[in-house]
Amino acid sequence: MVTLDYSLGILQYIPFYYVIWSDDLLSASEISVVRKTIEEDLSLDVSDREQLLGWLNRDNPPSEEEFKNWKHTISSSQIKLIESDTYPLTSLSQRLGKVHCGHCDFNDHLKHIEINLGIQPNHYNHLFDVEVVHEKTSDHYNASRLDEILKGEHAQVIDEFRSFLSEDDFKWKIERNKEAFRETILKQVQQLGEEGYGAWAYPNEYGGKGNMPAYAAIFENLMYVDGSVAVKFGVQFGLFGGSIQKLGTKMHHDQYLKDAGSTKLLGCFAMTETGHGSNVRGIKTTATYNSETDEIVIHTPGKNDNKEYIGNALHSKIATVFAQLIVNGKNEGVHAILVPLRNASHEVLKGITIEDNGYKLGLNGVDNGKIWFNQVRVPRENLLDKYGAISDSGTYTSPIKNPNKRFFTMLGTLVGGRICVARGALGGAKMALAIAVKHALNRRQFNDNVKIQEDLIMDYPTHQLRLTPAVAAAYVYHFTLEEMMKSYSDESQPDKRKIETQVAGLKSIITRYANSAIQECREACGGKGYLIENRIPDLKGDVDIFTTFEGDNTVLLQLAAKGVLSDFKAEFNSAGFASVLKLLHTQLADRLNTINPIYANKVDSEHLYNPKFHKHAFDYRTRRLTYTLAMRIRDYIKKGIPSYQAFLKVQTHLITLGKAYSVELAYSTFSNFCDTLEDEEYQKLFTKLGTLYALDNINQDARWFLEQGYIGGTKSKAIRQRVERLCTELRPHIEVLVDGFGIQEHCLTAPIAK
Amino acid sequence: MVTLDYSLGILQYIPFYYVIWSDDLLSASEISVVRKTIEEDLSLDVSDREQLLGWLNRDNPPSEEEFKNWKHTISSSQIKLIESDTYPLTSLSQRLGKVHCGHCDFNDHLKHIEINLGIQPNHYNHLFDVEVVHEKTSDHYNASRLDEILKGEHAQVIDEFRSFLSEDDFKWKIERNKEAFRETILKQVQQLGEEGYGAWAYPNEYGGKGNMPAYAAIFENLMYVDGSVAVKFGVQFGLFGGSIQKLGTKMHHDQYLKDAGSTKLLGCFAMTETGHGSNVRGIKTTATYNSETDEIVIHTPGKNDNKEYIGNALHSKIATVFAQLIVNGKNEGVHAILVPLRNASHEVLKGITIEDNGYKLGLNGVDNGKIWFNQVRVPRENLLDKYGAISDSGTYTSPIKNPNKRFFTMLGTLVGGRICVARGALGGAKMALAIAVKHALNRRQFNDNVKIQEDLIMDYPTHQLRLTPAVAAAYVYHFTLEEMMKSYSDESQPDKRKIETQVAGLKSIITRYANSAIQECREACGGKGYLIENRIPDLKGDVDIFTTFEGDNTVLLQLAAKGVLSDFKAEFNSAGFASVLKLLHTQLADRLNTINPIYANKVDSEHLYNPKFHKHAFDYRTRRLTYTLAMRIRDYIKKGIPSYQAFLKVQTHLITLGKAYSVELAYSTFSNFCDTLEDEEYQKLFTKLGTLYALDNINQDARWFLEQGYIGGTKSKAIRQRVERLCTELRPHIEVLVDGFGIQEHCLTAPIAK
Repeated sequence: MVTLDYSLGILQYIPFYYVIWSDDLLSASEISVVRKTIEEDLSLDVSDREQLLGWLNRDNPPSEEEFKNWKHTISSSQIKLIESDTYPLTSLSQRLGKVHCGHCDFNDHLKHIEINLGIQPNHYNHLFDVEVVHEKTSDHYNASRLDEILKGEHAQVIDEFRSFLSEDDFKWKIERNKEAFRETILKQVQQLGEEGYGAWAYPNEYGGKGNMPAYAAIFENLMYVDGSVAVKFGVQFGLFGGSIQKLGTKMHHDQYLKDAGSTKLLGCFAMTETGHGSNVRGIKTTATYNSETDEIVIHTPGKNDNKEYIGNALHSKIATVFAQLIVNGKNEGVHAILVPLRNASHEVLKGITIEDNGYKLGLNGVDNGKIWFNQVRVPRENLLDKYGAISDSGTYTSPIKNPNKRFFTMLGTLVGGRICVARGALGGAKMALAIAVKHALNRRQFNDNVKIQEDLIMDYPTHQLRLTPAVAAAYVYHFTLEEMMKSYSDESQPDKRKIETQVAGLKSIITRYANSAIQECREACGGKGYLIENRIPDLKGDVDIFTTFEGDNTVLLQLAAKGVLSDFKAEFNSAGFASVLKLLHTQLADRLNTINPIYANKVDSEHLYNPKFHKHAFDYRTRRLTYTLAMRIRDYIKKGIPSYQAFLKVQTHLITLGKAYSVELAYSTFSNFCDTLEDEEYQKLFTKLGTLYALDNINQDARWFLEQGYIGGTKSKAIRQRVERLCTELRPHIEVLVDGFGIQEHCLTAPIAK
Repeated sequence: MVTLDYSLGILQYIPFYYVIWSDDLLSASEISVVRKTIEEDLSLDVSDREQLLGWLNRDNPPSEEEFKNWKHTISSSQIKLIESDTYPLTSLSQRLGKVHCGHCDFNDHLKHIEINLGIQPNHYNHLFDVEVVHEKTSDHYNASRLDEILKGEHAQVIDEFRSFLSEDDFKWKIERNKEAFRETILKQVQQLGEEGYGAWAYPNEYGGKGNMPAYAAIFENLMYVDGSVAVKFGVQFGLFGGSIQKLGTKMHHDQYLKDAGSTKLLGCFAMTETGHGSNVRGIKTTATYNSETDEIVIHTPGKNDNKEYIGNALHSKIATVFAQLIVNGKNEGVHAILVPLRNASHEVLKGITIEDNGYKLGLNGVDNGKIWFNQVRVPRENLLDKYGAISDSGTYTSPIKNPNKRFFTMLGTLVGGRICVARGALGGAKMALAIAVKHALNRRQFNDNVKIQEDLIMDYPTHQLRLTPAVAAAYVYHFTLEEMMKSYSDESQPDKRKIETQVAGLKSIITRYANSAIQECREACGGKGYLIENRIPDLKGDVDIFTTFEGDNTVLLQLAAKGVLSDFKAEFNSAGFASVLKLLHTQLADRLNTINPIYANKVDSEHLYNPKFHKHAFDYRTRRLTYTLAMRIRDYIKKGIPSYQAFLKVQTHLITLGKAYSVELAYSTFSNFCDTLEDEEYQKLFTKLGTLYALDNINQDARWFLEQGYIGGTKSKAIRQRVERLCTELRPHIEVLVDGFGIQEHCLTAPIAK
């Protein structure tokens, strides 16, 4: 085909005609606008004008041949369509004119059509066979490379797992009915068990790989499929199986662990009661040893003492039940006992009542239920007896003499679950962020009056501020949790007390972060974010409860803060207090002295971007909060206020300390990780993410730093500006950053993320 | 019946035996604990001990006669059960002993039973016929009186309406299937229409009462039934009917308004498009006038130009469609046209396509849909022509010449809807708060080791801080919105520009507040808050979109800020800027000078609780932010940056100003309202609520005040402490305060709120 020799006048109009006629129907309003313009365009000669008006007849449209010629004229010219031009189509026309005629002015009449018909590149750029210059994303970094760094040493299992998840059985769909939903999720969990994914954290002899960190990564990836499958997976393999692994002995492992891992035996973890959630030590279910029959009797004594919210309750054959163990009339504290719930025909056993917990805000694919026990007898062997056993002679023995310590040791084995909860919440946030960022790179709204194309919402400062710090935090928390899981799984460090403190705080700030991030994403996607098909509503509903289960955040933050206090090796009673104080004072004195006016108002970017500044600020905050907390408690105790009351009075202070400690921990863990990166370019990127995380946090808490005189007003403003600036600097890489999360196409089903 | 003459030894044990045997089965563990104690209690003589042990035999329990005697012994003694005693049951026993024997020591053995069996007042206080001294709530204030004050002049209609809502048809239940849910909601809306509630805002001649403020109160009360019914009610009567009332002329009123109000005619409000939500001016649907047929042709030109999220789309017969009106080839801007969608048999008319929007995060009882128009013809009269008409001769005329002003005048009529949205969100927050507070006054968790009863979670400082400022804010926002609605409905003030600015800001901060408050309530109720039966999940899902619809909050805050700027009567271009600046400068100069070190560190409670301080702080903040904003924009413009770009660069500043302005407005409106209260005691309470609102807000934004030097570090800390203190001071009244919201029993269905 040969290009017809169009005149310059006609040539300029060809891209417009091509766009207009490519619609099925040329509307009346389009015709009238174009006709008016042509009549007013004095640069056209009479025959050009006649020809152009002739091509506007709806009853006699241009021939297909003509249309093909237009298309060929454009594509053969090898011009580019540049989306960021103020008038992309008029500029394209001008370029076309230049190619064919050597010279072509910018035609204001065409601009008039472009404005009045509101023709925008996203309406027509797919119609042309020309190079389209998008300016949405830089290719300086590579998403796969980021994904590799995030996967770390679990790359192989994650890749395999992701491809396994691409099977149709794991396709996400909307399911409103809880019964049907639970069926689907049950099947998925069984499939995961059969494939061996549930057992990854168990020892090899029980079908596992002894690899808890990989298990956590698997767990996070399940969040991309659906929150319900992740949580039910965690209940079956982590809580139920994990309780046998961690609290039971070889006899239990041999009998149950393999079946738990393969889902041959479905079980639940019955700790929480209606009346007791946070205060596990106060649970009321009793497990009374009867020496005559050598049995343990499980009983629900009162109205609110039933187990509640127990995941897997409707599908389980057996439960790990936490109860007050009473041996010879003495309460030995909370212990875990395996209690069969149903027979092979799935009938509930005598003495046991199970009720559905009904519909929830989210996770409706998980069968949560209430369980009552009425004098239910189980053999003595069913006691998970690693930390407390009943001997053949019917007496209680334990390797840990102090009941307090014993209790916390038993609960401490559950810390792995808390890491997974944080990891799951993080997965939810990553997914929501990926969806919201991709939407923001497609969605346009508002423009400067002179521009034809509206602005990408990702280019708005408020939008960047909404999403970018959250993306940075996702990276920081990812590596922090990886590191925590590594320490937790390290059997060479048997004392888990420190990691308990760390995880209590991190679980809390990360689940809080995830919920805020998902909420921002919902709002950032406007009405589209409200549609369930776009996945954000489910993420929101599912992740919401992560702030409560496996430890209520408010309680955990206090636990973390108390852990920080006890790091100073003292108990906070009036007796041993003086020495603690002395210790604290010495440690703090020189640090506090460093805050001088010059430092407090240093605002150059070199200083503000320096990890030393961030670390110093975080360290200063944690220590200062610890010191003032200790002082306040001491003062109360001096006045004769009992220690329980004193701790109540400083409750909000404890929470502030818990948060501060956790942020510091996350930043320093991530910062150490950055130091290990060998690729300089990627190290630069990761360091920038860390800087944004740090400055955003200091910015959020600037009030405290100002109060202390650690920063002055000028520095506070400078930090706020730097946060905005960093968001802008990361703008070109934002899509690569969310692609780096490695969420697979088949999971990213949200239409707005396409 | 006569009291048997028990010995003192036995008497003391009677309350315990009564409690223990009132259970159906005395458990093995209970028996062993009690037996052990009795054996160790040396104050008992041999026969007492024998008797008591004899009553512990499960195979031969005490006779019914004996049990009745115990009960009579206790009730006839006229002793009290005091819940706040450290050992309530042991203390009760001691009191019983005293009454019968004149003297009785506190028995540590009984205390031992109380601790070891964990018997708590909430387990047994219903068993006794004695006076139970709760200490949960003060009766200093009266909830009905508070409700009266909140209802104000709408008391009669609200009371009638509430009793109407108590009918079975408005009973809340869980409905997961959207089709069934929508049927229920449709019926409810029809019933409301038939009863005349939908028409309250319309003129009397169309079945209404001309009372928009009462309509808003009705709307809020509907939120207590269900978010979906409130929203569908708002769509039918407020948006659809309201568009006819506000944008149409007598011809339209006569033809449609009465039927809209009675739901004889169901309609929708088709403004938002997939591609255009916030930027209404950019919508793409065209309405082209065809002078030959005297018709208007409605058309959806492109892929993303369909209407979307249109409430009532599946049930409507007709739609108010917003489109670009093109008359004689000229685009006259966005206008509203009535377009029939379905015939009497509910078949969709030719050229129209309607699709269900599917499942959403919330409001699934509302039938949101997408609508496409393919060259749909309607008569010229269907143009709602109050602000723009097509004459008989086919030319466009408008009473408002400036197209910009015309557009904003038309949108301005929708401000009433924004007030209702804020009011609805507030209703959602009130309901969640009522549920969470009631739960917190029942739920106990953790205790001092020496106490038998666990603490009410409402008594924890962190819990108070979570809920109390939100309760205070609910009161502040209630009266603020009442006042706004009053001004808006005042026909003697035709210029609504100021109120537009005010409502843009208030809608934004109040919907944000409502979402945060509901989220706090969810978490404050722990797992119970996650169950749909407890209502908070639905409130959360329903109210979520209130931050987006009727104006995205981020966009509205900028609108409010721009309104504040233009209050200074200037357009922000380089030309008129100097005079603005001068004006600003003069106004600010003396205010800025008042900030001296003594003021900045004044921390006495008299000062901190003084409304003058709050007003000054808020006024200072708004003006300072306005001034610095103007300065920044001027500097950009001086550098030659176009005004659109300059506004982008200060986008976060605009948002800060928008919020600051709105908080100031809410506080001063509420404060003025407090001055009108005649009852001194209630005025004191309301003033305290206002103080908490103000200090909480200054506290949230302390960083900014510190940066400016408006407050010093000491004052900042003092404010934080005062917020905590005020929460504690309001603690005795918290239940009365939420009862004052007037949410009826039949709406407060949450089991945890019982």
